[in-house]
Amino acid sequence: MPQGSVTPYDVEGTVDYEATMHKFGIEPISEEARKRIIDHAGSLHPLISRNIYFGQRDLKWLLDEYDKGNEFYIYTGIAPSGSMTIAHLIPFMMAKWLQEKYDVDVLIQIPDEEKYLIKKDPKLTLEKTHELAYDDALNIMALGFNQKKTRIFLDTEYAGTLYRQAVRVSKYITFSIIKDAFGFSNEANIGSIFYTSMQAVPAFLKSVEAKKNVPCLIPLGLDQDVHFRVARNAIEKLGYYKPAIIHSKFMPSLKGGAKMSSSDPDNTIYLADDEATVSKKVNKAITGQQSTIELQKKYGGDPEKCSVCQYYKFIFEPDDNKLMKIFEGERKGTLLAGEHKADLAKKINEFLASHRAKKEHLRSKVDDFMLKD
Amino acid sequence: MPQGSVTPYDVEGTVDYEATMHKFGIEPISEEARKRIIDHAGSLHPLISRNIYFGQRDLKWLLDEYDKGNEFYIYTGIAPSGSMTIAHLIPFMMAKWLQEKYDVDVLIQIPDEEKYLIKKDPKLTLEKTHELAYDDALNIMALGFNQKKTRIFLDTEYAGTLYRQAVRVSKYITFSIIKDAFGFSNEANIGSIFYTSMQAVPAFLKSVEAKKNVPCLIPLGLDQDVHFRVARNAIEKLGYYKPAIIHSKFMPSLKGGAKMSSSDPDNTIYLADDEATVSKKVNKAITGQQSTIELQKKYGGDPEKCSVCQYYKFIFEPDDNKLMKIFEGERKGTLLAGEHKADLAKKINEFLASHRAKKEHLRSKVDDFMLKD
Repeated sequence: MPQGSVTPYDVEGTVDYEATMHKFGIEPISEEARKRIIDHAGSLHPLISRNIYFGQRDLKWLLDEYDKGNEFYIYTGIAPSGSMTIAHLIPFMMAKWLQEKYDVDVLIQIPDEEKYLIKKDPKLTLEKTHELAYDDALNIMALGFNQKKTRIFLDTEYAGTLYRQAVRVSKYITFSIIKDAFGFSNEANIGSIFYTSMQAVPAFLKSVEAKKNVPCLIPLGLDQDVHFRVARNAIEKLGYYKPAIIHSKFMPSLKGGAKMSSSDPDNTIYLADDEATVSKKVNKAITGQQSTIELQKKYGGDPEKCSVCQYYKFIFEPDDNKLMKIFEGERKGTLLAGEHKADLAKKINEFLASHRAKKEHLRSKVDDFMLKD
Repeated sequence: MPQGSVTPYDVEGTVDYEATMHKFGIEPISEEARKRIIDHAGSLHPLISRNIYFGQRDLKWLLDEYDKGNEFYIYTGIAPSGSMTIAHLIPFMMAKWLQEKYDVDVLIQIPDEEKYLIKKDPKLTLEKTHELAYDDALNIMALGFNQKKTRIFLDTEYAGTLYRQAVRVSKYITFSIIKDAFGFSNEANIGSIFYTSMQAVPAFLKSVEAKKNVPCLIPLGLDQDVHFRVARNAIEKLGYYKPAIIHSKFMPSLKGGAKMSSSDPDNTIYLADDEATVSKKVNKAITGQQSTIELQKKYGGDPEKCSVCQYYKFIFEPDDNKLMKIFEGERKGTLLAGEHKADLAKKINEFLASHRAKKEHLRSKVDDFMLKD
């Protein structure tokens, strides 16, 4: 893959969001759209107001449909390959807020075959991804979804419903399209080639079930857009609405890379990390600060290059005024790296402690959320 | 595809069975194997004794396992794309006889997605193949399978079980392999590329369910061998026995082509054809006879080139002595085309009338045979 490429299987180097949007026809979330969401929801979630959700496809159409009384549903998901990280929570936080504000259904796919098919790791068996999938389901539930309006499924447990629809989509997707979109070679296995059809299904499944077209909104990380670039045309050929999409940027690695990656454990916060581990990892994080305290006090730092500031911006400081103060402290050099990191570690640990408690509380309620054949 | 090629999606020209066996490593059914089957079964089904089932993979191994007390099961199937023809009955007749003689389970796959994915015909929707699949199931049941030991399923109704196993197989099959085996181009749709994984599953599904290796025997038409050339290695990599296979020749078209094809209705007998239609089609059949009665009486004909003789040989004259007489009559010129055809039409119509009666009788019992998620 070339440097700076963005696919689900490879996010490399620095991501040029502008160039990616231009290349693939993703539009920014307009001021008008933001205003309309404020009209509907009473406020804007920080993930949108801070432009972490930065791009969209057909969002105006979706809001038009909503204004006409045509209720949408939300579809998002996660492919299990290891313990969930805090970065993995972003689409679910977005989905949860949208559900709360718009009072809509949420459909969550956990494709437990995807990483099995893609990764070469012999330890990542289908039994292992199945186990991880149930832990993911609990992590998602712990965000506080409305049980009555939220359903989660594993592909291998819901294939009786999904496969038939995936077959329909797959008829309109050639290997040439997959090869171009995902950069696969002829040596890719045929399960990985077919897989995108399974990911497409939940984007129109409610329409199949309702026997009428139901709009769908997908909050996703930019690397997942490719699945729907491929599927949206196929879905339209089947006679369903193309799903609307909102795209988020990648939460940076603690060392400042393009994307927090679960395959780089030292620079990633897992939901399962204990307090000492979080403190240790955050303490080694790259900040935007100068090399010495003296230089930092004199010249200040750059919050855009500071992974600590970015963690506050992405998740851990929802209050815009407080975030502004943190960014200012970094910029002016009044906020020193040591306390800056210690504060963040404390916030993360508070969040994780509360998250774990919610998770334990919900452990007996998983079946209430799951869809199975 | 080159002339004389043999894949499920294209059987062209004259089939050179010897060359195909040599090319793909298919062995003949040996005299020793025939003797062992007679030892087990008390007789040999005409489809084997007449060398219509002519080839095999691992048959000796399967019979060895059986002699060790390791019971096998039989797997075969049919992909619905139109009304079933008499040629489609061959693997089921074989399976039914083997079940009777060996008292074994039979698993029958009706992949109702396959032709939907392969054919360009817009009328062949999944709804249509589903309807055809249930008619196929009835036609199969009408052959007299033991209900307690026979299960039939449609892929779209059993995907909750099949997809998980297909994913496991598919990890070991690359697009390169599919491209070489089936002659697909990069413009093949990704459902058709994945499909062979679904066809592979029933060859080891009983082993998955029993949690121990169970031998499997697949009676199939030669054009289907390619699926298992691809899948046998993948199945072995998963730790299961490779299925044994016996291969049948193609029942010729009434006009004498390599294979009776459901897409050439005038030269094909459908199970749904009425008496007048059968008589009309058979009356136009190509025989191996001379152009005039005088020449035929003088020089005789060639039963190998006579589709009427071949129909007797394949299905409609199980008695070897009677078949020999028919072949002799053709060879010596004593059997004239008119009565030759009229006799066959009568036999076919008797068979179809009885078949239809059995089918009607079983119409209320379909659910007893079907496997669904």
